[in-house]
Amino acid sequence: MRQLIKNIHLITNDEKKTEIAQAYVLIDGQKIAEFGPMTHSLPKAEVVIDGQNGILMPGMINPHTHTGMIPFRSLGDDVPDRLRRFLFPLEQFMTPKLVKASAKYAMAEMLLAGVTTFCDMYYFEEEVAHATDEMGMRGLVGQTIIDMPTCDFENPIAALKWTEGFIERWQNHPRVRPVIAPHATNTNNEETFKAIVQMSRKYQVPVTMHVAEMTYEMEEFQEKYQQTPIAFLERFGFFSERLIMAHCLFIEESDWPILAKYKEIIGIAHCIGANTKSAKGVAPVKEMRAQGLKVGLGTDGPSSGNTLDLFTQMRMFANFQKTYNHDRSLFPAKEIVELATIGGAKALGLEKEIGSIEIGKKADLVLVETSSVNLFPIYDVYSALVYSANSSNVTSVWVDGQQLVKEKKLVQHDLRELREALAHEMTEFVQEAEIRAKEVD
Amino acid sequence: MRQLIKNIHLITNDEKKTEIAQAYVLIDGQKIAEFGPMTHSLPKAEVVIDGQNGILMPGMINPHTHTGMIPFRSLGDDVPDRLRRFLFPLEQFMTPKLVKASAKYAMAEMLLAGVTTFCDMYYFEEEVAHATDEMGMRGLVGQTIIDMPTCDFENPIAALKWTEGFIERWQNHPRVRPVIAPHATNTNNEETFKAIVQMSRKYQVPVTMHVAEMTYEMEEFQEKYQQTPIAFLERFGFFSERLIMAHCLFIEESDWPILAKYKEIIGIAHCIGANTKSAKGVAPVKEMRAQGLKVGLGTDGPSSGNTLDLFTQMRMFANFQKTYNHDRSLFPAKEIVELATIGGAKALGLEKEIGSIEIGKKADLVLVETSSVNLFPIYDVYSALVYSANSSNVTSVWVDGQQLVKEKKLVQHDLRELREALAHEMTEFVQEAEIRAKEVD
Ligand SMILES: [Zn+2]
Ligand SMILES: [Zn+2]
Repeated sequence: MRQLIKNIHLITNDEKKTEIAQAYVLIDGQKIAEFGPMTHSLPKAEVVIDGQNGILMPGMINPHTHTGMIPFRSLGDDVPDRLRRFLFPLEQFMTPKLVKASAKYAMAEMLLAGVTTFCDMYYFEEEVAHATDEMGMRGLVGQTIIDMPTCDFENPIAALKWTEGFIERWQNHPRVRPVIAPHATNTNNEETFKAIVQMSRKYQVPVTMHVAEMTYEMEEFQEKYQQTPIAFLERFGFFSERLIMAHCLFIEESDWPILAKYKEIIGIAHCIGANTKSAKGVAPVKEMRAQGLKVGLGTDGPSSGNTLDLFTQMRMFANFQKTYNHDRSLFPAKEIVELATIGGAKALGLEKEIGSIEIGKKADLVLVETSSVNLFPIYDVYSALVYSANSSNVTSVWVDGQQLVKEKKLVQHDLRELREALAHEMTEFVQEAEIRAKEVD
Repeated sequence: MRQLIKNIHLITNDEKKTEIAQAYVLIDGQKIAEFGPMTHSLPKAEVVIDGQNGILMPGMINPHTHTGMIPFRSLGDDVPDRLRRFLFPLEQFMTPKLVKASAKYAMAEMLLAGVTTFCDMYYFEEEVAHATDEMGMRGLVGQTIIDMPTCDFENPIAALKWTEGFIERWQNHPRVRPVIAPHATNTNNEETFKAIVQMSRKYQVPVTMHVAEMTYEMEEFQEKYQQTPIAFLERFGFFSERLIMAHCLFIEESDWPILAKYKEIIGIAHCIGANTKSAKGVAPVKEMRAQGLKVGLGTDGPSSGNTLDLFTQMRMFANFQKTYNHDRSLFPAKEIVELATIGGAKALGLEKEIGSIEIGKKADLVLVETSSVNLFPIYDVYSALVYSANSSNVTSVWVDGQQLVKEKKLVQHDLRELREALAHEMTEFVQEAEIRAKEVD
């Protein structure tokens, strides 16, 4: 099927940052077939969509989230050591059904906000993979491997063993890509790490992990190994397949040569909203980019970042990076939109397929309306996207050429039903959560 | 007329932070007449509004903006010294009609985002006062007094003289309150400052000014007076009527006793979004609050802060203040909602009339729907408002008991018409703006 989207302001985010003020795009099947100015004679198509002068951009890419964690949103947000007081204890109440309902809801939220691809790590990831498939999204999906009993596995080796089957079941899916997901550098043992590296090599699948996020993680590595987490990862051979590292807040001088050496297979998911809400700090993205590292903007989970949209992240990123570097010109809006799209694609190793609007690439597209009050005037569409737009301005979304959002609503699903299904599964979780919330008050 | 709003989650922001999960509020005429839990027998009313489990909160208060500056939005955002390269030169193209169209549009934006009161400073403020009246908002309105020829006055004394008539014309308006608005500490001369202080005393009207915002402002004062701007203001007698100071980014040790001494008549408009987008820094709000100072959250103008909603500011505020102070528990969401409402009211000296939901206060109210995807689940409504909500979640707004927003649309005006009227007045401005934008490229 051919779909023509016309009357759009096109930003392609290709290498040249091609931008066409009055443009059209033609989708053929799952791919981008053609684009150009409206002065061309328009191609024929079965479906014609009037973009009404909205901004058409590549689908946004969220390289780090936890879609199963919607039940945690707004719980204990300002409480110290929330991870140990709320997150870990409540995880035992997660069930496959709850994770699936949460994941579908989270994907609805991402789609409605213009996110078309994500990288996920949590529990019961078979359910997340199915949710991704059902919601029509593109996702890297990994089962958390952690050195403690969890809601689904007794120990990390059992989780890793399961992951092998998971990889085999999903490795040929067109949109769902299995990955290996050790929780963090400091929450696994050496034996598990060795087995993870072996498995990632055997199947050539990426690994994703929380890295250099916590001050206690840094201290622990210093004490135990007299090494940084990144040096440790190198020693264990982690930089042989793609390694998608969330956060990387604390980069030591000695880490830079390691990162630079493996820059082609390292992806960094920079989660500015989550990092700063929890007062952890601001990652050195200017230096990462100077080293040629691939950086994308991640939301982290709905408990840490609260919303799963990248508009919030783009604006936070701009303000934090400019202020931390004392330079208002650093990271102009155009570069921030790059990070949220092709930047994320490069971090996930998917830049040949997605992240920009180029002929032959997958039709993962987002249309942002410009009729809302916050989007006038527009001298610079990138400025409008970064500094003025919010997730509610997204009006249409396509993944793999399939329109999943239309007139700000899901096409294939009913948001209310997704919410009711999730609320239904949350009953026991909410009871336990409220007991813990009262203990804090 | 009596209006009953039922089925709401009520946050009053009174001293005790009273919160009622299933509640109603009764508006009688311009005022709040009654509120309570839904278990009460509900009072009779001519109009009954079903809040559908939305959050009803006090109208948000924006203590610093420039409503005339919508034409500048998204222009040269990431350019160094934007003030001198874009803002000052383009101001000569402002006309009374353009300012009025811009102000009405800006007020539409604020209303749709749940802002009910603002403090404005720009040119042609007679037009802004009329716009405030026509849009039904509550505003403090002040003509910029600056030591250079402007689009409306040859010199600051002419602007100040005009201000006297402006005060006399508007001082009895129920919603529009005239103020005196010297541009900044470093953009006026001593003679003007003396005359301003005299006039503010004579009419007992507040003064609003940009204070301690620029590093060159700080350096200039050090060189010229061996004093900080705040010490200078004290010396000139500025702390006799209310002084609403925007920014106060750079507070020296010696300033704290001065600020503490006049804390009852000082209002601080903290504009975190504008301050950090321009890489200027993060104001010491923790210390300000410790000194008992009245702090509100301001958007600054649409060219500096880009959007005029306080949701963006609340979230920015949380993340910046927590990170700068290395404390995730600092400024919990409840306190941030306080800053955006009663905090702003106190900064403007209006806390007896507005800022909280209390019987007898003006019915300036905002209803935030909770059915959108970003607002589930809600364990804590304050967390939801600060970390998840955005301006598009505002569904109804009342000012002075009059419903101005209903089902996310303006009641008395048509947004499209306001936009077309503004676009029409912007023609010449846009031509000039684009010439300057090209020079930068
Ligand atoms: Zn995470
Ligand atoms: Zn200002």
